Amino acid sequence: MRHFGLVLILTVVFFSTAWAADDPLTLESNRNAIELVQTHADYVWTLVAAVLVFFMQAGFAMVEAGFTRAKNAVNIMMKNLMDFSIGSLGYWAIGFGLMFGVSASGWFGTTGFFLGDFTPDGDPWVLAFWMFQVVFAATAATIVSGAMAERTKFSGYLVYSIVISALIYPIFGSWAWGSLYKGGGWLEGLGFIDFAGSTVVHSVGGWAALAGAIVLGPRMGKYTRDGGIRPILGHNMPMAALGVFILWVGWFGFNPGSTTAASKDIAMIFVNTNLAAAAGAVLAMTTSWIKFGKPEVGMSLNGALAGLVAITSPCATVSPLSSVVIGAVAGVLVVLSVLFFDKIKIDDPVGAISVHGVNGAWGTLAAGIFNMGGTSLSIIGVQILGIMACFAWTFTTAFVMFKLIAATIGLRVSAEEELAGLDISEHGGNAYPDFEVISYGTGMGAVGIPIPGPANAAGGPIMASASPAEQA
Amino acid sequence: MRHFGLVLILTVVFFSTAWAADDPLTLESNRNAIELVQTHADYVWTLVAAVLVFFMQAGFAMVEAGFTRAKNAVNIMMKNLMDFSIGSLGYWAIGFGLMFGVSASGWFGTTGFFLGDFTPDGDPWVLAFWMFQVVFAATAATIVSGAMAERTKFSGYLVYSIVISALIYPIFGSWAWGSLYKGGGWLEGLGFIDFAGSTVVHSVGGWAALAGAIVLGPRMGKYTRDGGIRPILGHNMPMAALGVFILWVGWFGFNPGSTTAASKDIAMIFVNTNLAAAAGAVLAMTTSWIKFGKPEVGMSLNGALAGLVAITSPCATVSPLSSVVIGAVAGVLVVLSVLFFDKIKIDDPVGAISVHGVNGAWGTLAAGIFNMGGTSLSIIGVQILGIMACFAWTFTTAFVMFKLIAATIGLRVSAEEELAGLDISEHGGNAYPDFEVISYGTGMGAVGIPIPGPANAAGGPIMASASPAEQA
Amino acid sequence: MRHFGLVLILTVVFFSTAWAADDPLTLESNRNAIELVQTHADYVWTLVAAVLVFFMQAGFAMVEAGFTRAKNAVNIMMKNLMDFSIGSLGYWAIGFGLMFGVSASGWFGTTGFFLGDFTPDGDPWVLAFWMFQVVFAATAATIVSGAMAERTKFSGYLVYSIVISALIYPIFGSWAWGSLYKGGGWLEGLGFIDFAGSTVVHSVGGWAALAGAIVLGPRMGKYTRDGGIRPILGHNMPMAALGVFILWVGWFGFNPGSTTAASKDIAMIFVNTNLAAAAGAVLAMTTSWIKFGKPEVGMSLNGALAGLVAITSPCATVSPLSSVVIGAVAGVLVVLSVLFFDKIKIDDPVGAISVHGVNGAWGTLAAGIFNMGGTSLSIIGVQILGIMACFAWTFTTAFVMFKLIAATIGLRVSAEEELAGLDISEHGGNAYPDFEVISYGTGMGAVGIPIPGPANAAGGPIMASASPAEQA
Repeated sequence: MRHFGLVLILTVVFFSTAWAADDPLTLESNRNAIELVQTHADYVWTLVAAVLVFFMQAGFAMVEAGFTRAKNAVNIMMKNLMDFSIGSLGYWAIGFGLMFGVSASGWFGTTGFFLGDFTPDGDPWVLAFWMFQVVFAATAATIVSGAMAERTKFSGYLVYSIVISALIYPIFGSWAWGSLYKGGGWLEGLGFIDFAGSTVVHSVGGWAALAGAIVLGPRMGKYTRDGGIRPILGHNMPMAALGVFILWVGWFGFNPGSTTAASKDIAMIFVNTNLAAAAGAVLAMTTSWIKFGKPEVGMSLNGALAGLVAITSPCATVSPLSSVVIGAVAGVLVVLSVLFFDKIKIDDPVGAISVHGVNGAWGTLAAGIFNMGGTSLSIIGVQILGIMACFAWTFTTAFVMFKLIAATIGLRVSAEEELAGLDISEHGGNAYPDFEVISYGTGMGAVGIPIPGPANAAGGPIMASASPAEQA
Repeated sequence: MRHFGLVLILTVVFFSTAWAADDPLTLESNRNAIELVQTHADYVWTLVAAVLVFFMQAGFAMVEAGFTRAKNAVNIMMKNLMDFSIGSLGYWAIGFGLMFGVSASGWFGTTGFFLGDFTPDGDPWVLAFWMFQVVFAATAATIVSGAMAERTKFSGYLVYSIVISALIYPIFGSWAWGSLYKGGGWLEGLGFIDFAGSTVVHSVGGWAALAGAIVLGPRMGKYTRDGGIRPILGHNMPMAALGVFILWVGWFGFNPGSTTAASKDIAMIFVNTNLAAAAGAVLAMTTSWIKFGKPEVGMSLNGALAGLVAITSPCATVSPLSSVVIGAVAGVLVVLSVLFFDKIKIDDPVGAISVHGVNGAWGTLAAGIFNMGGTSLSIIGVQILGIMACFAWTFTTAFVMFKLIAATIGLRVSAEEELAGLDISEHGGNAYPDFEVISYGTGMGAVGIPIPGPANAAGGPIMASASPAEQA
Repeated sequence: MRHFGLVLILTVVFFSTAWAADDPLTLESNRNAIELVQTHADYVWTLVAAVLVFFMQAGFAMVEAGFTRAKNAVNIMMKNLMDFSIGSLGYWAIGFGLMFGVSASGWFGTTGFFLGDFTPDGDPWVLAFWMFQVVFAATAATIVSGAMAERTKFSGYLVYSIVISALIYPIFGSWAWGSLYKGGGWLEGLGFIDFAGSTVVHSVGGWAALAGAIVLGPRMGKYTRDGGIRPILGHNMPMAALGVFILWVGWFGFNPGSTTAASKDIAMIFVNTNLAAAAGAVLAMTTSWIKFGKPEVGMSLNGALAGLVAITSPCATVSPLSSVVIGAVAGVLVVLSVLFFDKIKIDDPVGAISVHGVNGAWGTLAAGIFNMGGTSLSIIGVQILGIMACFAWTFTTAFVMFKLIAATIGLRVSAEEELAGLDISEHGGNAYPDFEVISYGTGMGAVGIPIPGPANAAGGPIMASASPAEQA
């Protein structure tokens, strides 16, 4: 244990390793020393990867704010900050224990709350592992924020944020990723492959987002009474693009970091992650070009994310060539899926359901289909079972939770608050006081059909359109 | 010595380590090889951590610009760029030698200027260590920028920036963190605990910020003649939030990187750092909600930073549970402190004094109170002594320096320049030429009391309010 | 000592290390284990460095968008996203094989396309190395984007992007950095020093940018018929500054990561990289202050980048003091070069030719002049030969390619599209729908002569100025 001060810091460099000084020089002591150095490298890699995954919080905040309107940008920052902050405390107090605690049943853990009884022997590995896991939990929570943007009551959102971090996510996680000291999840026991969490993290977020979007209903003015779809423009495309680049950076922690070990295996995971993202972006751009006549930026950005989500499950067990195929399919799928959810009038301002839910499922299936170790109907069947179990658990519990919130403290702001923007109504401020925000209107959105010119002249019609109550 | 080319690069992988080729295989040579691999891991970890801390410069730039007005955003970018650039050169030429050079007296080092006589044996560790330290020095410098924003003359600021990086920061640093080859700081000798610099870095920045804000006086229009406080709105909240996320990322280098060794110890430091930040954000949000009736974004963001500053000193020597408590207290404290400094009319546009000065002191005290190795009045007494020594040294020298700058080349721009904005008056450009900046006015600020609506109609009154001379 | 999570994760942790279980304890087996741990550290370092370099894509996007007008920001995001996405696929399919495949001739490789026949023995190192190289290839591609901003047809740009990633960059790269399994590049054979790619990456990008800017011709309104130069304002200076900070972060992967090994050597490379960037920023600021009467932000930011580009080649083979000199010269050079290209009416909206082309050449020359191992006319001569070979190859091939694109699918948008902005004309959207974009005009740009006030009243003259056809 070393602390501070340069003299001590210098000491660290030369004597921090356990074999110092009076350690006798034997084959065994050398072997132990080698294993200790490897362990140090494992800590460094796992925790650096955790930093990259943490950075994804910034990426989600930028993507979500960029794809929505200026009048709700403060609210989005607050939601993302609190997803991680409250989520960290909830996952520390409850979630981690449920997910990785001792589980006799295989359905959830019952020890390790508050990191309490995890380290009887003082091994700090559990702390490194917690750090890597808490950033995953926060990712699942933050995914939902985008689909519920621009109309959710902040206090209701905070309740959701605690529940997903402390209960919904960890319990499903315990099924697929097992428990820390003994026992294991039932899905894991069947051979379910989800290396870094296409299902465990992204589909959980995506299906909770679907439940949230359904319970909330669409934003005012999004769907007209005569069946029309009115795209609502995102307010800052460079911000959204920065967010996607940051998320891409973060995924280089998310996927290869899931080895939680410094090993040669991370190389292929890096390459696969990168190729799938690239293929997703290119194919989504191409699809949008064909569908809309122009290469659309929102779709292209979401295409990269779709590729990343899809490769998350299979990244360690498929070839680079397969990764290109998996990402390419994801890029097409995300465009079609966004259009589909718009058609059935489920309003998802950023495309989170399509990116994380649908492509999380696709990636999990792909892990079975493209498995380098060989595939079979039984392998694919287990993958499908995992996908279905995730949907059933997450959608059901999230739907019930959102209905309960709506019935008690309230889940949606009033029509007046929604029109004014959540920044002013929920937080008493606004994001850009030095600039006049002229639109608050509708038009081509981050995920929508391009239209030939600015479409900001629709203040009246929005006001006149269906109220949230009518729409929901 | 290797260069380029794949054949050579491949060679690197297998033969870069010192035991290659003709190294005889013995227990000793194996042990030496093990120590070399550990050393390589130490270099990688320390330098990756340095990259994370460097990234904090971007975080500070975004927070500071986001929390201030659009008309000063170019100036803030220039200050942050130059803090690091001039600071790097000054710390290389002078600061590092003062801080870590041989010190017979215990008050400052006298060798190692220009990295000159540090590596007689050619060991490059001093270069890795310099890299880690220079990003710390730049952090201290940049903290001050925020408190002096929107009214400081650029040339005067550059002089300050050199002096803090080359003199004020390194000399205090030498007291607490000692010297590189022999001797050591007097505070360190007493057992002062400041693992990663709540006092050494953050309080130095915070107390210099206090001196700067006092010498400068408040921004025009901030305090009215009848005793009123007029919040001045920050111009971009998503930018500020991005900055906070980046700073949080950077702190994962700042705190665990202070081990300067790849070891198991970094795990607990990561967890503590994260929990304190989370608790700070949650409690600051809650406090702002109670105080103002709404959860305020500027306070919540500063709450995360306050938690990070507070845990910087104790991060290696307290438990995760204590870290939650330390961060929670910091979250409350930062809100109260911001209101206090506003009440006594010390104008700190971004809350830097409260975040870094006050919470730096709180964290240093907390390191004594919550010390896992046990605490005592004497331990706490030394912590208080260190806090007081830091305030006495930093505030005094910074105050004198700012007064000298004000009396010679000038520290504050003219009233006309302040109204026009520093971007146009000091740099001949503006940050957002394609947009009309409508406000330049006052209203709810990043750190201030929320008011119900945009408050941009105050051009006249600002003009009419007390001139800087009257206010100072 | 870890045991939770995925079955696969478990596998990795327990069996990734070669000495597990039944490995007999001998001097040889211990040595093998040591080498394996070193290899793991090499993988971690190389791939973390690759993440940092990947992040540069975000930096380039922010710099380029910040230095250009709001009406083209979506287009810039799309170009940067596609540079990396299409570039990744092109470099995977073709480029990497050309650059590092077996090369009997020394002029290009002929194996390893699609990563196909590189790993007969299953060693995943080639995957780690590919990952590090693909982010370099994308950097070269993205440099060009800035010089061709605000007037290039998107479909034509995509063709360029594929060609540089798959052909122009890799072929020159094979000359200087050799081939993977046998043979080597002819420049490399002569002793050409370009450690991390001042020439191989940055000058290739810079000279291709020059060719592109010449073939395209200047933006409408940039140069008037009476010989005047009209600066065109960048629309977001904090965004540009964020981009430069991100690029600086990325360079800490770019330069020290080029060791592709966890070694002590990275320390000096870090220090040199940082000092050159700092000196570049300070000297560019000073030069702009002298030339224009005010310290200009665009020049200062480009000064940091110029220092970084210049130190890229010599970073491993010069002293810290030399690095300060190299960076300082780069800082002066970039200002003079930007003014020079403006004078000869080559319109480079972001200064890419000066930053990457000119300073890439300067850095490569400096690697010969300041070489710590001693210098000579012959060493310097080889450096000059390399610089000239790069210019001859890149400028010629890029010029021909751009001319072919212009003659077939078209390289430049119509005058109407250029005036409307590429966002709406090429992508059917715009970057900031919630804000009124008032200028689209001309004035002091990111790289230009400061003028005293906003200069947005020039809508008419722009319209009336020379058409692209007249100018080209």
